[in-house]
Amino acid sequence: MIDKRIGIIGLGLMGGSLAKALRGHVQQLIGIDKHAATRQLALAEGVVDIVTADLHSAATTADLLILATPVNTILEILSILPQVCPEGSMVLDLGSTKQAICRAMDNLPPSFAAIGGHPMCGKETAGLRAADADLFREQTFVLARSDRTSPQIEQLALALIDQIGARPMFLPAAEHDRLVAITSHLPYLVSSALMHRAMAEDDGRLWDVSASGFRDTSRLAGSDPRMMLDILFTNREAVLASLEQYHSGLADLAKLLEDKDEAGLSVWLEEAQQAYTAYRRSRIDRR
Amino acid sequence: MIDKRIGIIGLGLMGGSLAKALRGHVQQLIGIDKHAATRQLALAEGVVDIVTADLHSAATTADLLILATPVNTILEILSILPQVCPEGSMVLDLGSTKQAICRAMDNLPPSFAAIGGHPMCGKETAGLRAADADLFREQTFVLARSDRTSPQIEQLALALIDQIGARPMFLPAAEHDRLVAITSHLPYLVSSALMHRAMAEDDGRLWDVSASGFRDTSRLAGSDPRMMLDILFTNREAVLASLEQYHSGLADLAKLLEDKDEAGLSVWLEEAQQAYTAYRRSRIDRR
Repeated sequence: MIDKRIGIIGLGLMGGSLAKALRGHVQQLIGIDKHAATRQLALAEGVVDIVTADLHSAATTADLLILATPVNTILEILSILPQVCPEGSMVLDLGSTKQAICRAMDNLPPSFAAIGGHPMCGKETAGLRAADADLFREQTFVLARSDRTSPQIEQLALALIDQIGARPMFLPAAEHDRLVAITSHLPYLVSSALMHRAMAEDDGRLWDVSASGFRDTSRLAGSDPRMMLDILFTNREAVLASLEQYHSGLADLAKLLEDKDEAGLSVWLEEAQQAYTAYRRSRIDRR
Repeated sequence: MIDKRIGIIGLGLMGGSLAKALRGHVQQLIGIDKHAATRQLALAEGVVDIVTADLHSAATTADLLILATPVNTILEILSILPQVCPEGSMVLDLGSTKQAICRAMDNLPPSFAAIGGHPMCGKETAGLRAADADLFREQTFVLARSDRTSPQIEQLALALIDQIGARPMFLPAAEHDRLVAITSHLPYLVSSALMHRAMAEDDGRLWDVSASGFRDTSRLAGSDPRMMLDILFTNREAVLASLEQYHSGLADLAKLLEDKDEAGLSVWLEEAQQAYTAYRRSRIDRR
């Protein structure tokens, strides 16, 4: 039992899943969401103990505020928090990019303790209905320190991560953003561009001949554009760098095929297969 | 019960899965494979009734030969079949590209009946051990006619497709190849290029922060390079065309982000999401 009152702002997929995973294991769970339907659903399903739309009341009641909204909303909340909650508070976020958020945390008054967080898991479906208490299990949970990170909030964050079955990993915000540009934001763009390429063909039979390969490679295109837009804009430079290198890799590949360089293409494909196999083998004990 | 002796050449993922799906529902199943270990496993697991490495004996015994090898091996077998089996035979293939194969079928003597086939399913894992009797269930099975396609072989192919629970779809070979360049070969290259991009970063922490999105988008990189190489080379022009359009789509996307065109990028991402949602909804009754 974690003897703290936890306020979760944003009861979508991530916030809702966290609430489900923590329910019964913390002193009190307060759900803060601007949508009445989400608040009703959260109460009806017993996802949290109490719900409110009022950030001020939640902020003054909770020992720890967890910001589980899209990135730009997290930034807005961090900017108004000193007014909402002048006496200070502990703050953790679950946003998908960390540099902008950790910078905003740096700017909080010294009465605040704040640490950046990013659980490396998700689904292409958004919303509380898709929330799952097991979402975080065995998954990496990145923690990125800010100038406002105290030993106390670090300990509390680690206790919560332990409770939900995730694996903590400390990373500087800039390192985090550079890595997830490649492992998360680039795959999203690659997948969305694939969907655009398929749409452009404008041939209904295309969908009939699409199998599990197309399904999996296009899955991320189903992600919430609003959430992704914030991510792409708060990690714009790393995403562009990642995209540029990817783009030139594709050009190399096309060249091999154009030149009918069977030996070269074979090596290129084998390298990719070996890397994939090694990656999957390293995850054999993970989901 | 289909009252025919069926010879399956190549007991890998596709041939092995087909054998498992047909076992007990045809008069006799003959497995032809050049690897002794695969033949032993097929016999030990009762995947087929008899096994042989001898194409000649199998070709003269079987009523229908099903070619379930990589595409170039299918082409080689079709080229020697008139010598192996001078009295003619019925031939179906499961190759992933259809134009080169149907052209080779056109060149068979008139004593042969031949039709191209391509079940739209697969796994990134190859080999008989990954074979699954349910692989074809509810999946599209493309049939592409050649000049050697008779009503009899068409009927037999439809009976087999019905038996394994797949959905037949007739497509001209060129149309098939154009469509699968987009739904299958492009996703493979996109996925392999993503793996190359990740490898290039050369940072072990990258794998720790990769979640289900990276896993699914990179899955096809695990495909058998030998099989894929044949596919890419026998569908080279359609693949290059598909890759070129994809490449220019990615460039448009990078431009939107470079220009900080939030409205334009938002529309682009929403279009991809809507297309993905419509595609998935249309498959709601499929796997």
